[in-house]
Amino acid sequence: MKSLIFVSSNDHKYNEFRDGFKTHNISIIHMKREYPEIQGRNHNEVIINSIGGLISVIEPPFFVEDSGIEVQYLENFPSIYSSYVFKTIGLKGILNLLKDVENRSATFKSIVGYVDENYTIKIFEGKTEGEITLSPRGTGGFGYDPIFVPKDSTHTYAEMTIEQKNRISHRAKSIKQFLSYLTGTE
Amino acid sequence: MKSLIFVSSNDHKYNEFRDGFKTHNISIIHMKREYPEIQGRNHNEVIINSIGGLISVIEPPFFVEDSGIEVQYLENFPSIYSSYVFKTIGLKGILNLLKDVENRSATFKSIVGYVDENYTIKIFEGKTEGEITLSPRGTGGFGYDPIFVPKDSTHTYAEMTIEQKNRISHRAKSIKQFLSYLTGTE
Repeated sequence: MKSLIFVSSNDHKYNEFRDGFKTHNISIIHMKREYPEIQGRNHNEVIINSIGGLISVIEPPFFVEDSGIEVQYLENFPSIYSSYVFKTIGLKGILNLLKDVENRSATFKSIVGYVDENYTIKIFEGKTEGEITLSPRGTGGFGYDPIFVPKDSTHTYAEMTIEQKNRISHRAKSIKQFLSYLTGTE
Repeated sequence: MKSLIFVSSNDHKYNEFRDGFKTHNISIIHMKREYPEIQGRNHNEVIINSIGGLISVIEPPFFVEDSGIEVQYLENFPSIYSSYVFKTIGLKGILNLLKDVENRSATFKSIVGYVDENYTIKIFEGKTEGEITLSPRGTGGFGYDPIFVPKDSTHTYAEMTIEQKNRISHRAKSIKQFLSYLTGTE
């Protein structure tokens, strides 16, 4: 069985990944650590800078993931600052910013960055369209999951089981592309 | 004609590249600028960190090149620090360190890092084996060229014309791989 290092401080992401990889006979080693997120203009830049910082301490191959939510009415805020915004103004802050706002459209994005043993770097993006709820619902998932209802669903991510979320989530989509690349069925 | 940005403060490198690209109907735009070289354990890491720093200011696609000489007797010094060492102790310093040393074997390496519009990063390495001379010879080229004689040659890089150097140089080899990749004949 092939094994691959996933660098992240986030257990939830690892839990969402795990099954998809197992199905393809790849085991993930979760290297649980924080790393400085050097910001860029977009997720691709953030990911490449993160990999650049990590390759000096971790021998490739490994992969990282960056995700974020873009709220249309807020000019796509908080995007690459999603994690920072979640830790500061939080879900309550986002809901306040959308108080009495009708257009609640939002896009959840997941970007996987993979660096292989030849130092080739590949980026995979998954996105899921949806809407911001009027109030938080559900206890599953993490981050913005309680206030995001994907298109064609009536449940927030946080109201779903991991299996349900994995059928439609932005992260499931980026990982699916990544797995196709790894297994050569791209 | 396709065009591609080459980011470098070095005119010599650009001059060596230019013809190879022209042959493949690709024009290079030389974006002449210094950029901070964040060091790593090897050229691959240096290159990826350079790209990481540049993508925040330059829209991909673009490419960079890092080169260095490794002197066997000196435990591969100066390698990724070649540029710094050249500017400080210089050719004279290297020749002093090899005073009365019989083993004068050295390897010249060129690493090209390319980031395309999808933020995929590819690394191409070229290397040429050779020897360090007893004293500087020739006025062509740049950097360590006056003290490096490639294998099967009696001339230093600095004693060759660009065309001659391009037939055997480490840089010509990394660029050849890069061109094969770009034109899909890899």
